[in-house]
Amino acid sequence: MSVNLYDVAYEMERAIRQSKEFTELKALYDQVNADASASKMFENFRNIQMNLQQKQMMGQEITPEEIEQAQKLVALVQQHPAISKLMESEQRMSMLIAEMNKIIMKPLEELYGPMQQ
Amino acid sequence: MSVNLYDVAYEMERAIRQSKEFTELKALYDQVNADASASKMFENFRNIQMNLQQKQMMGQEITPEEIEQAQKLVALVQQHPAISKLMESEQRMSMLIAEMNKIIMKPLEELYGPMQQ
Repeated sequence: MSVNLYDVAYEMERAIRQSKEFTELKALYDQVNADASASKMFENFRNIQMNLQQKQMMGQEITPEEIEQAQKLVALVQQHPAISKLMESEQRMSMLIAEMNKIIMKPLEELYGPMQQ
Repeated sequence: MSVNLYDVAYEMERAIRQSKEFTELKALYDQVNADASASKMFENFRNIQMNLQQKQMMGQEITPEEIEQAQKLVALVQQHPAISKLMESEQRMSMLIAEMNKIIMKPLEELYGPMQQ
């Protein structure tokens, strides 16, 4: 085991925790969770989104009704200021994580060629 | 953008590249690739494995013949000393990456609860 690697991983964990992206995300997440109706709306949105993604991954058919329901829900949550800000913040966080992963995984990518999705 | 985070990510990339696990993996990978018959056998194994994984993820049926073929191939590649060593090394590398990810993703896991597969 490379002790040094663990040190760097913990350093990275601290850097993520202290980053502007994470502290902002946490504040927005707490804000939505503190509001019962916003929290419920967001959770509902999450569940439907996850359900559709799962269906898609399993190659199951998504009905026009389901697409319409999802689109309406996206329009609804985007109009909610706190949720809409939270979703933008999540987007930035996930882009940041993807960039970090790309850097860290470079040695393995060089060995195997670009990673499969 | 958190410049510090990028510094840590590059530090981590270097640490992985210099780790015992990665240098060993690279040496074994080069060794298999330098041997045309081993390389072909390994590639064949990879393709069949990936094909089965994809079918599984898509919820498609895997036939008993396919399972038998895959089991025979596993038995075959495991008897090849260089390929068998390479596969063990890949296993160690993937466990290491999983441990690193677990550490790094702690802040997000705390926010959202344990991540979904």
